[in-house]
Order: sequence, then C-alpha cells, then structure tokens
Amino acid sequence: MAGILEGLRVIEGSAFVAAPLGGMTLAQLGADVIRFDPIGGGLDRTRWPITDEGVSLFWAGLNKGKRSVQVDLARAEGRELVAALVTAPGPDAGLFLTNFPPRGFLDYAMLSARRPDLIMVSVVGNHDGSSAVDYTVNPATGFAWATGPRHLGVPFNHLLPAWDAITGVLATTSMLAAERARSRTGAGEFVQIALSDVAFWMVGNLGKIAEVQITNHQRIKDGNYLYGAFGRDFLTADGRRIMVVALTLRQWRNLGLGETFDAVAKMMHVDLDDEGGRFEAREVLGAMIKPWVVERTMTEVGEIFDRHKVLWGPYQTFTELVRDDPRCSPANPLFAEVAQPGVGTYLMPGSPLVFTSADRLPPAPAPLLGAHTDEVLADVLALTGSEIGALHDRGIVAGPTPPPGTP
Amino acid sequence: MAGILEGLRVIEGSAFVAAPLGGMTLAQLGADVIRFDPIGGGLDRTRWPITDEGVSLFWAGLNKGKRSVQVDLARAEGRELVAALVTAPGPDAGLFLTNFPPRGFLDYAMLSARRPDLIMVSVVGNHDGSSAVDYTVNPATGFAWATGPRHLGVPFNHLLPAWDAITGVLATTSMLAAERARSRTGAGEFVQIALSDVAFWMVGNLGKIAEVQITNHQRIKDGNYLYGAFGRDFLTADGRRIMVVALTLRQWRNLGLGETFDAVAKMMHVDLDDEGGRFEAREVLGAMIKPWVVERTMTEVGEIFDRHKVLWGPYQTFTELVRDDPRCSPANPLFAEVAQPGVGTYLMPGSPLVFTSADRLPPAPAPLLGAHTDEVLADVLALTGSEIGALHDRGIVAGPTPPPGTP
Repeated sequence: MAGILEGLRVIEGSAFVAAPLGGMTLAQLGADVIRFDPIGGGLDRTRWPITDEGVSLFWAGLNKGKRSVQVDLARAEGRELVAALVTAPGPDAGLFLTNFPPRGFLDYAMLSARRPDLIMVSVVGNHDGSSAVDYTVNPATGFAWATGPRHLGVPFNHLLPAWDAITGVLATTSMLAAERARSRTGAGEFVQIALSDVAFWMVGNLGKIAEVQITNHQRIKDGNYLYGAFGRDFLTADGRRIMVVALTLRQWRNLGLGETFDAVAKMMHVDLDDEGGRFEAREVLGAMIKPWVVERTMTEVGEIFDRHKVLWGPYQTFTELVRDDPRCSPANPLFAEVAQPGVGTYLMPGSPLVFTSADRLPPAPAPLLGAHTDEVLADVLALTGSEIGALHDRGIVAGPTPPPGTP
Repeated sequence: MAGILEGLRVIEGSAFVAAPLGGMTLAQLGADVIRFDPIGGGLDRTRWPITDEGVSLFWAGLNKGKRSVQVDLARAEGRELVAALVTAPGPDAGLFLTNFPPRGFLDYAMLSARRPDLIMVSVVGNHDGSSAVDYTVNPATGFAWATGPRHLGVPFNHLLPAWDAITGVLATTSMLAAERARSRTGAGEFVQIALSDVAFWMVGNLGKIAEVQITNHQRIKDGNYLYGAFGRDFLTADGRRIMVVALTLRQWRNLGLGETFDAVAKMMHVDLDDEGGRFEAREVLGAMIKPWVVERTMTEVGEIFDRHKVLWGPYQTFTELVRDDPRCSPANPLFAEVAQPGVGTYLMPGSPLVFTSADRLPPAPAPLLGAHTDEVLADVLALTGSEIGALHDRGIVAGPTPPPGTP
C-alpha cells in the first residue's frame, strides 16, 4: 500500500499535541515520520489519559504510524546523531518538524550549514518565542468568556485543545508548501508558527476583531444558541439532548408549527425568512419548539426532522459516541480495531483525508518508544551493526522500551 | 512580494467556514484563489457578525486576499463558465476546493474528462455524503458533555467552530499533498474530507476512544481544571480571572507555599512530583493557591509567576483581547490595519505561517463580490472584451456589487 506522501521522510522532535499531530497527519498519508525522544521518553510520555498500568493513551493517539528513536539528548554524541538524522541526504528528506526550542543543537543556521536545503518547521508559543500553551492561549482569545450559559459570570474553557489541533495541521500545510518551493528552487526554509498567532488569526477570520472595532459589539455568553441564525439544544421525551440548527420557514410549516410562527413574526416585527430575524426571535421560537420536542422521543424527533431535512444531531458523551454512533465504528472506513502494544485492541482512526488514486492506509498503532532506533540508524545514517552496538554500549541510544505492566 | 505559493491557482466554490478558510489559508501564502459565487452571493453572504449596514464581517474575515467572480449558477451557461474555470489549463492550476455537493456540474468524473489531472478537494458533512455542520457534529463528539462546571447537568457547545477550522486547514494539506503527487505522476486526484470524520479522528487522537474502550473511564465535566495535571482558573484581587497551568514542586516552593504542599502530599498519599498526582490533589492544591492569588492583583501575580516561569494567562473578552493584548495589535507582525470596502479600517491577520525565504504577505482585504469577474474571464479563460460584455448583457455574470449602505 502506498499513501499519497509515500517516500517523504520527516524527522519530528516534539511533545504534547500540535507538533505530534502534525507529524501524525503526514505519517497517516504515507510519509516516513521518525520521532526522536530522550531515552525514557519526553515530557508527554505519561500524559493522561493513561491505562491502569500507566501507559499513555494520549501518546498512543498522537504518534500512530511513526517510527520511534530513543537518543540521549543530554550528551553531545546523542545530539550529533539527531542533527545527522535531521540533515540526512535524500531529495525527499531534510524535513524537520519540532516544537522544541529552535536553539542550541536545533538551531536552524547550524543545521542548515550541514544541509542547506533543510526545511524546518518550528512550532512556538508566542510570535516572540515566549512560552504559551493551548490552556493559556485559549483564555486570551475571548472564546472562554463567550462560552456557556448567560447567567454564569465565569469563563469556560472548552476541553478540546482546538488551537493545538489547528496549529498542528497548519504545520503540515507549511511543510508541504515549503517542500513544493524547494522542489523548484532547491532552497531550504525555516518556518515559524506561533500557537497564539493561530488563535488570534482565527478570532480575526471569524469576524470577531471587526465586531469589536467596527460595530463595537460586546459578545456575551449565549448558552447553546447559535449566533446569527436559529439553533439551540432541546430535551426530548426520553431525556436525550439534541442540537437543532437553522429551521427555515418552510420546515417550520411542514412540522405543523406555521400558525404560531406567523404570530411570532407579527408580534416581534421580524422577518423570519431572514436568518438574522430568526436569531432575534430565538428565545420565542425556542420556547415554541420546546413542547413539540419534549413530547417526542429522540428517535421520533429524528425521523421527522430527517424527513423535512432539518439539521439536527444528538448530544453524546464520549461513551455514547463509541457505543452508539455508527460513524465512530468499523462501519466507517475511517476506523479499524487495532492492537496497541501494552494497551490492547481498540478503535483507531486513520487519516480523515480520502484520496481516490492513492491507497487509504489502515490505521497503524503508535510505536513502542525506541522501537526503530536500530533500523533508523542503519537505514538513514548507514551505521553498521557494530557502530550501533557501540552506541548502545555507551548508552547513547536505546532500543524498544516495553510498556509499564509488561512482564 | 511573492508568497511561498506564488503561481498556484485554486478555484474555490464554497460557503461558511471550512472551505473558505482552506482557500484563504492558501491565498495568504500567495496562491491565486478565485472564489465563485452565484450572483448576489452564496448562503454565507450575510452571515453574522454583520455591520449596521448589513455587511458580513464573517464573510470579510474568511475571504481575505481572494479574487471573486459572480456567475449565474442556475443557468447552463454560467455552470459551463465555472467548469471552464475549474479545468482551465496551466501546470500550477487545475486545483478545485469546494464544499458544494460534488454532483451535477461539479461531478469529478465530468470535470476530469475536461482536465484529467484535475485535483478536487471535496469537503462534506459525513463520510457517506450526508449533511452535518459543526453545530451538529460537535454535540456528537462528547466534548460538549465534558465542558463546563461539574454541577451543571447540561452540555455546553463551545462557541469556536473548531471542527470547521481543523477541516479547512486539513483541506489545504490534502491539496498540497495531491499536487505534490501530480507533479511526479501527472495524475489527477479526488479527495474527500468529512467534517465528522475530522472530529472523530481528533477524539481518537486525544486518547478518548481508548479511554472508553480500555479503561472504561467516563469523562465528566470538570470545570476549568486541566485533565491529568494541575491547571485551573483563579480570581485576582482586582477581579480578573487567570488560568494557571502545571505548577511544579519547585515553583510551589519558590512561591513560598512549600510547607502546605508537603502537608498535602502526606495527607493525600500522592506524589506531587508526578503530574498525575498533582491532578489527583487538584482541589486541595487549588484551594491553597486561591487565597495567595486573591490577595494580589493580576499584574502582581503575573510578575511573580513570570519570574518563576509559571505558565499562566489572563482570561479576556474579545473586546479586552483587541484593546489590551499587544499580541493582537500591529505590534505583532501578524496584524495590520486594513481597509475593508464597505466596512472601514480594522485589524486584520495575515498568515500565521512565517517563511524566512519567501515574503510574509501583508493581510489583504476580502474582495467585493464579483470584483474580479471581468479580469478572471479575460486572464484565465482568455475571453475577449466583447465576449465578456455579452455575458454581462445576458446576466450570466456580474461585476463588483457595492456593499449595502454604499451611496
């Protein structure tokens, strides 16, 4: 099987979400992504969620399909090995993705002296190189103060590290863009992406900076209402919660709610053909839909909504998603049951990008830490067996580390 | 100025967030992105936030730096023009990004009959082609049930359309990956990305599917606590809220809180050197930090935290972000004050991807709808002035539409 990026080799020095996600996105498209870690693993090695034995399900999730090398980064000889990996020859190599500080042995000028066409993508916290993580950037964006029910005067973080995810994927865009340019000009490239820049970029992209500066509108919490159209959550007769989005006039009438609808339009002097008008009347409209929904089960509501093409979806816990939703099961070609060493077999997603002419690679598990140390030293650096043995003897590299709890 | 993707031409047929964001990501790197719309604009033309005159700040935010063409998509002649644009010749063209249904005149087989090496990236709701939007997908993921304070038994949507954002950026990854393959093989490519696949991919990537299947752990709401480490929000003496992340033992001691810290470790039988241990003791630790924070202003707390390298950040509303945060101002090279036709001058972000060898393009405003109709028909389709005039006469195309409120 050959993914669309078959043949590309990327070295990854990373921890946590953004950079590992970027590397994994490329690995799941067929690139050979080699992640190096200090012996014993990096800062994200035991990140929660973990199994009872202490194996990180987080690490397993973000490093699927990569090769893993363990190197002593505290010693000059280990650092030299990493620099050699990053700058190893080959037209489809010389690609380095990292969220480690781009200094010392990972300084671009030093590395590109060894391989002038090196492409290095550096993920940092703030644009000036100072530290920031998703959990400190998100509070700054404004989203936490605009999330949750109106009557609660405290900000809510969302659990999803969204800025990390967007940043990680953008890192892949920048790497492929730089590689495209290099294939034409031969020139190397240093790319910087700051997590907080990505967040403030999205705040601007969604019109929220203009909203402050132009309309002087202070966006406040509005529960689960959709902004600028009709959408909110409802409780069904069987105690399920559903999200309902953007009912149109025609859909309203088809549901037999036309008369009340006309009365609302008249009373509130709003044009319910217009989504802005429906937003203005959201509380009244919601109060009218509520009894209609609450006397039906979720299944009944869903059948009627589907028939009339009303967009809706159930609220699910993570458990309900995995247990009940066919989209999150092997019935969806995105997923397969895969054995993760030291953990067991569970449902893993492959790439959500489906190419027609290239193969869709099945999801691959994350490697054991150091599982590919020897083969990478042989493959990429052309070291001999005895050279590799000597590195082991001196503790400069380490092979596969069995997961905790393994006999 | 030449961006890293200078010379690439992408046709975009889109609405709302994901596909327009993907096109804009490429435009901000220097690609020539031509968005076509029905005359008068598409479904997202008036999406909120809007100005008092009804100009969409949302549309302006997601279409920066593109060219715009207005075509009557209801007539065969208009559809033919779009198909001709999508399949127009050129080695760096033949790239089409869309979230319109890939059927009818946008069917890949039909389009690729005209240009066999066409690359088409199709953003859909669910993997089977059925409808879903961010607001119906997010409730299904599990995140809404895990966001917000524990004592509130209702799910919270986050305001950020995170799945749209990740999907839009992934679309650019897939387009560049397919273009890379085409440059080697000459083959075209049809790529499908489903919004809900992207969401469930991330649920899996973050270890939450494994958590359900392997550890049988039901993740519940936990307020603003960080999962698996120490992190939560605090109120300062001057009434500001801040997020504080992952205090280590050493930081604790440096803040003069070492003694109570030791007492907690002893009482709770936890290892506070371990981030999992700090998570288990989060409520006690939080209760101990709280009085320390609440007797200092945010400025005082920030200075002390910065000195001891404690990661923290202020909660800000959108207004506070724009007014107070230098990272969201022209002091950050990401931003510039730009005039948006029909709106006014406000702070716009350029690309958060900073390339060293290519130019960093300054942010460009969104086009007036149809601003480039004539030049694109001339440039790309080589139509003559009189042919273009005839299309206008028959109402097949339209030129620049002045924004509402323009005299």
